Amino acid sequence: MELCHYLPFFQALPPAEQSALSHAAVRRRVPQGTLLHNGSADCLGLLVIELGQLRAYMTSDEGREITLYRLFDRDICLFSASCMLSSIQFDIIICAEKETAFWMIPADFYKRLMERSVAVSNYTNQLMASRFTEVMWLVEQILWKSFDQRLARFLVEESALEQTSLLITTHEKIAAHLGTAREVVTRMLKYFQSEGMVRLTRGAIELLDLKRLEILAQI
Amino acid sequence: MELCHYLPFFQALPPAEQSALSHAAVRRRVPQGTLLHNGSADCLGLLVIELGQLRAYMTSDEGREITLYRLFDRDICLFSASCMLSSIQFDIIICAEKETAFWMIPADFYKRLMERSVAVSNYTNQLMASRFTEVMWLVEQILWKSFDQRLARFLVEESALEQTSLLITTHEKIAAHLGTAREVVTRMLKYFQSEGMVRLTRGAIELLDLKRLEILAQI
Repeated sequence: MELCHYLPFFQALPPAEQSALSHAAVRRRVPQGTLLHNGSADCLGLLVIELGQLRAYMTSDEGREITLYRLFDRDICLFSASCMLSSIQFDIIICAEKETAFWMIPADFYKRLMERSVAVSNYTNQLMASRFTEVMWLVEQILWKSFDQRLARFLVEESALEQTSLLITTHEKIAAHLGTAREVVTRMLKYFQSEGMVRLTRGAIELLDLKRLEILAQI
Repeated sequence: MELCHYLPFFQALPPAEQSALSHAAVRRRVPQGTLLHNGSADCLGLLVIELGQLRAYMTSDEGREITLYRLFDRDICLFSASCMLSSIQFDIIICAEKETAFWMIPADFYKRLMERSVAVSNYTNQLMASRFTEVMWLVEQILWKSFDQRLARFLVEESALEQTSLLITTHEKIAAHLGTAREVVTRMLKYFQSEGMVRLTRGAIELLDLKRLEILAQI
């Protein structure tokens, strides 16, 4: 599929702009683990994901992490071009969680396009509103949900994402997704194990009772 | 001051649009405590604050609250027109914390304007990015800061806002700002009192040692 099929505003652009955009966009493929954006340190551009998985997260001064949201096939990563919008005064990190193929539209090019085209500008508005919605959901989770509920939800979602009931991950990594300490994750997983919901082995967690985890997660 | 002085994009509009906007905007004044926006239940429009103070907050199913941000003179309230942007899928409540005078630009009018004018659309982008920045700051606070630090910061900021060291408020209200339970606030305030930083009386908190509170708040 071509870039034009991923961008709803493409057809609204005049032919000259369409052609300039197609030329400006760079197709790239990065391996799992590639750091694509690191706060205000860089400003790559808008990423249009063809195939793969990106993770947007933030870190504390002490190096703790929390996952803000994830992006999948056909999603568009706006904050890798955050320098375009001077009012964005926060730093997030974006990393490829799986091998990812994408088009990169350089930030300065997109910014000029957004200043000329009301279709592009309004589309950018909708993109930001979508990410805002995800972060607001996270705020609610952190504030009002208990940790057993958040952990259960994370396990169920990972299982669906990876299409397996055997999750190859560490307690450390789960803690980094959920914004907590490793010990907190280990304690809760051991409780889940004592309840027969999971089985813990070195480097893996097997989900034994998905139904009960879903009920706990209130999915 | 006229509405045109509050809206940076005003001069970029053609004269006919300027005139239509001036006619569409309604000047209002509401008393302290007025509920201006309640999630998806209403969609008043963009509020351009002349004078006053608005509080944007959200609530849990159990009725707990947390303040997301506040708006002051010359600020613009975007989420009271959230129906304009279909990607905004979260509910916030906006309430007048003090008597507030504002212009209200109806949501459908602003939406049409935003679809025609790239200046308006890009300005809306910047507005949303500013609110997003405030919410991201809140996420960091909740996740990485201890409660004594957050409470100290709240007291110092309230004191600056009200220009007094005697805060007329209840533990219940502070809990609603900080997204916690009243008991948690009471316990920490009693600790602050035992340390000589505040004096607690019925319905009021006197800040005795602003310097230490600022150090604690890391301001």
